[in-house]
Amino acid sequence: MSKTINVTVWNEFRHEKSNDAVKALYPDGMHAVIAAGLEKSGNINCRLAALDDPEHGLTQEVIDSTDVMIWWGHCAHAEVDDEIVKRVQKRVLEGMGLIVLHSGHFAKIFKALLGTNCSLKWREVAEKERLWNLEPSHPITQGIGDYIELPNTEMYGERFDIPTPDKVIFISWFEGGEVFRSGCTFTRGHGKIFYFRPGHETYPIFHNPEIIKVITNAANWAAPTIIKEDICPNTQPLETLSEKNVDFGKAGVVQASEL
Amino acid sequence: MSKTINVTVWNEFRHEKSNDAVKALYPDGMHAVIAAGLEKSGNINCRLAALDDPEHGLTQEVIDSTDVMIWWGHCAHAEVDDEIVKRVQKRVLEGMGLIVLHSGHFAKIFKALLGTNCSLKWREVAEKERLWNLEPSHPITQGIGDYIELPNTEMYGERFDIPTPDKVIFISWFEGGEVFRSGCTFTRGHGKIFYFRPGHETYPIFHNPEIIKVITNAANWAAPTIIKEDICPNTQPLETLSEKNVDFGKAGVVQASEL
Amino acid sequence: MSKTINVTVWNEFRHEKSNDAVKALYPDGMHAVIAAGLEKSGNINCRLAALDDPEHGLTQEVIDSTDVMIWWGHCAHAEVDDEIVKRVQKRVLEGMGLIVLHSGHFAKIFKALLGTNCSLKWREVAEKERLWNLEPSHPITQGIGDYIELPNTEMYGERFDIPTPDKVIFISWFEGGEVFRSGCTFTRGHGKIFYFRPGHETYPIFHNPEIIKVITNAANWAAPTIIKEDICPNTQPLETLSEKNVDFGKAGVVQASEL
Amino acid sequence: MSKTINVTVWNEFRHEKSNDAVKALYPDGMHAVIAAGLEKSGNINCRLAALDDPEHGLTQEVIDSTDVMIWWGHCAHAEVDDEIVKRVQKRVLEGMGLIVLHSGHFAKIFKALLGTNCSLKWREVAEKERLWNLEPSHPITQGIGDYIELPNTEMYGERFDIPTPDKVIFISWFEGGEVFRSGCTFTRGHGKIFYFRPGHETYPIFHNPEIIKVITNAANWAAPTIIKEDICPNTQPLETLSEKNVDFGKAGVVQASEL
Repeated sequence: MSKTINVTVWNEFRHEKSNDAVKALYPDGMHAVIAAGLEKSGNINCRLAALDDPEHGLTQEVIDSTDVMIWWGHCAHAEVDDEIVKRVQKRVLEGMGLIVLHSGHFAKIFKALLGTNCSLKWREVAEKERLWNLEPSHPITQGIGDYIELPNTEMYGERFDIPTPDKVIFISWFEGGEVFRSGCTFTRGHGKIFYFRPGHETYPIFHNPEIIKVITNAANWAAPTIIKEDICPNTQPLETLSEKNVDFGKAGVVQASEL
Repeated sequence: MSKTINVTVWNEFRHEKSNDAVKALYPDGMHAVIAAGLEKSGNINCRLAALDDPEHGLTQEVIDSTDVMIWWGHCAHAEVDDEIVKRVQKRVLEGMGLIVLHSGHFAKIFKALLGTNCSLKWREVAEKERLWNLEPSHPITQGIGDYIELPNTEMYGERFDIPTPDKVIFISWFEGGEVFRSGCTFTRGHGKIFYFRPGHETYPIFHNPEIIKVITNAANWAAPTIIKEDICPNTQPLETLSEKNVDFGKAGVVQASEL
Repeated sequence: MSKTINVTVWNEFRHEKSNDAVKALYPDGMHAVIAAGLEKSGNINCRLAALDDPEHGLTQEVIDSTDVMIWWGHCAHAEVDDEIVKRVQKRVLEGMGLIVLHSGHFAKIFKALLGTNCSLKWREVAEKERLWNLEPSHPITQGIGDYIELPNTEMYGERFDIPTPDKVIFISWFEGGEVFRSGCTFTRGHGKIFYFRPGHETYPIFHNPEIIKVITNAANWAAPTIIKEDICPNTQPLETLSEKNVDFGKAGVVQASEL
Repeated sequence: MSKTINVTVWNEFRHEKSNDAVKALYPDGMHAVIAAGLEKSGNINCRLAALDDPEHGLTQEVIDSTDVMIWWGHCAHAEVDDEIVKRVQKRVLEGMGLIVLHSGHFAKIFKALLGTNCSLKWREVAEKERLWNLEPSHPITQGIGDYIELPNTEMYGERFDIPTPDKVIFISWFEGGEVFRSGCTFTRGHGKIFYFRPGHETYPIFHNPEIIKVITNAANWAAPTIIKEDICPNTQPLETLSEKNVDFGKAGVVQASEL
């Protein structure tokens, strides 16, 4: 009934190869588990992409056929090629949705779109987290109750250095005493962006049906209405102008910087 | 009475050397005229910096002693060194104010902070512009009436590809039939940003006392409360945690991407 | 294919009875023309309601079966019963969509939801208006180009005293020299609100297919995801509390003010 | 050095007369303790006003000489006269600052300005609260560290039904497991509004120097730049209009609803 959405799930996919605890939870990678979860919804087709694929799995062709991209990175953000970051950013501005998970807060693509350093407090002691649902009528929280409880998570605490979000969807309570804006929406160009905090690699977060439900909802919400490239056109007047009695000369043409 | 503010006025400073019309209006550069205008307020000290200065005039020492930076660029945005852009961006996130003028909408520093492509419609036929003052109680518009009228300007028209501003201070009406959000405030990190549209190089815009008044107000508004670097600290719990009965192992450390 | 939406089109419906020019344009009222236009979309069912109907046509039963309400008022805002305004406001907070047209900027329901006085500049000389589309990827502007041109309209000019909108969708250019934020979205409680400027009673605005297209899109956009009443519950702790070694006593119960 | 600010501290002032626990903490009322705290800053003059004063202590003369009003109410919101609420609201829209404390979330003036029902979760078991400072560079948080800790407070939990704030300054963590947006700024008309959660009558919250520091900062922040009444003027065109070849007639004059 819902329209079909093409999702590309991008994963750094390194911890799963090098760390036994992570490998045990996600033998084929977190992206495979996320994709399998999303596809249960019936209207989402997933493709997997990883850092060590050619062009990180993000060729122009892949990007052009992606409605929503999901991004998970952690220990190798700096290895992501700047040109490919620009390619993804350009497509978000044209309308592609982007869902950034957990440690992706430090991904180049997230920082490029938000403009801030995206720092936060953190601690890895398997404490309890409770994500409070502030927007029960938002498309992203449909099927979710007053809160989601995660028995064991890495802690992220405020101050999270981000621009004021369009909407704060979830705020987390942590057993150790901190709080965090765990679900935030942003718009950049024609693209919708959702940051969602849960997802540390050593906990079975992406096996949790409520987490998959939120990401599924977010993929449906972030799917583009249209794809449109904004250019910088020189245009003709729409009204008759008064006579100009001075000559101001002309200056040089603007040189567009790259993204 | 107001506190002293150190402003660095950065100018590409190319048109003034190569174009006779511009040279006639601004023999020492637009930055010199802006600086002279700001200094009349009594509490602002200005320093000039230009693209062709060593390090574009923006050494770390200059930046560290700048409260508010003003930016004008047009035909050589791409020549601004990426490392210096990062240096300026880092300082804005720490609290330095930034005022971006006119064709600076395409400057690397503006795009880096906003994350969008900042495109717009444009036309250079010396038409009339009227900037409507939407926020008469905002510090930036003190001393300005219902509108500012400019007899001859370059036109910039919507859609201006920017994130939703914190506040839209001015909207322009153009003789040729377009409109534009000509005064917009943003916050990134601890830094306040003001984009102000007027300022084309072939018109005497920066000789206009109302324009100088707005920039003076904006410099006072954008001056930092504090300077603070956000880092990403690993912190101890503030509350006693419950006993954890599972061992999740540890994964690798996050690798911060650069700005 | 789209879900069915129940729209109630509320009209003051006074000018159409007393003014020949208006009567000629809208013999059965503006609401009848709007409703006929919306119903062409196939998924919208319209009901009409007017000031002089019993309970202004807005019984609790009508409101409970309305997904989106459209509001047009002008010369008799003060005659709308305060209790019925509260009834509508309560339903908007629970999720009902609301589209306020033109002179509805001064309607009690609009002011009650926004909290400001909603004043503006105005002039009635049949001048030209051009509504620039700032958000071509927003659901409300689908099927609309760069702008909508209206040959003859009443002018509304800034400053429009409203809280900062979630999104400014349209900004108008007027022949006489003013600008106006003509399409604005807001959220209050779980309800989506769209203010749309065009619609003066002496011009054939609601016979314009582009205007009807925007209102149709807005009705689809504003339809509720869920209906939910926010109450103020006394709740039990979710965590074990530490022993309290002081007795603070209890104070009286909060007394909820009405809306 | 800072400019002098005239603050009116409004208190319902009922619990302090009827409840022994509250009387012991605040024998002269919470407003007296708040005022004494604010006046230590040197630039703030305070006046007290209470529900049972004639006109609730809020005559037009008092309001006209108030820069910032502070509001505490709890068990008698409904007894506040609607006309006096309108008087206060009108002055906020003209530029007077407003600081609403704790159970004032349900005050008529707060709901009138925000338009929502302002409901929340609550519990009165003297639990611990930690208010995290999200905006260390904001004027309201100067002198405050990473967080404020209150050993015993009433709990307020999300969902707090408010429009998206301009800035969320504080988010609270509660011992019992909830979170709350405890410091929020809004703008309505020309007035700045700050909601600050702490302040339950049975705890010595207003004897806490950090709480007084925040309210003092907020009073300085909310003081008006200018006072300006927005009216709805009929204005003449600024540009020469094209010849109109149709007569549309005129309709009736708009009837402004009251606030």
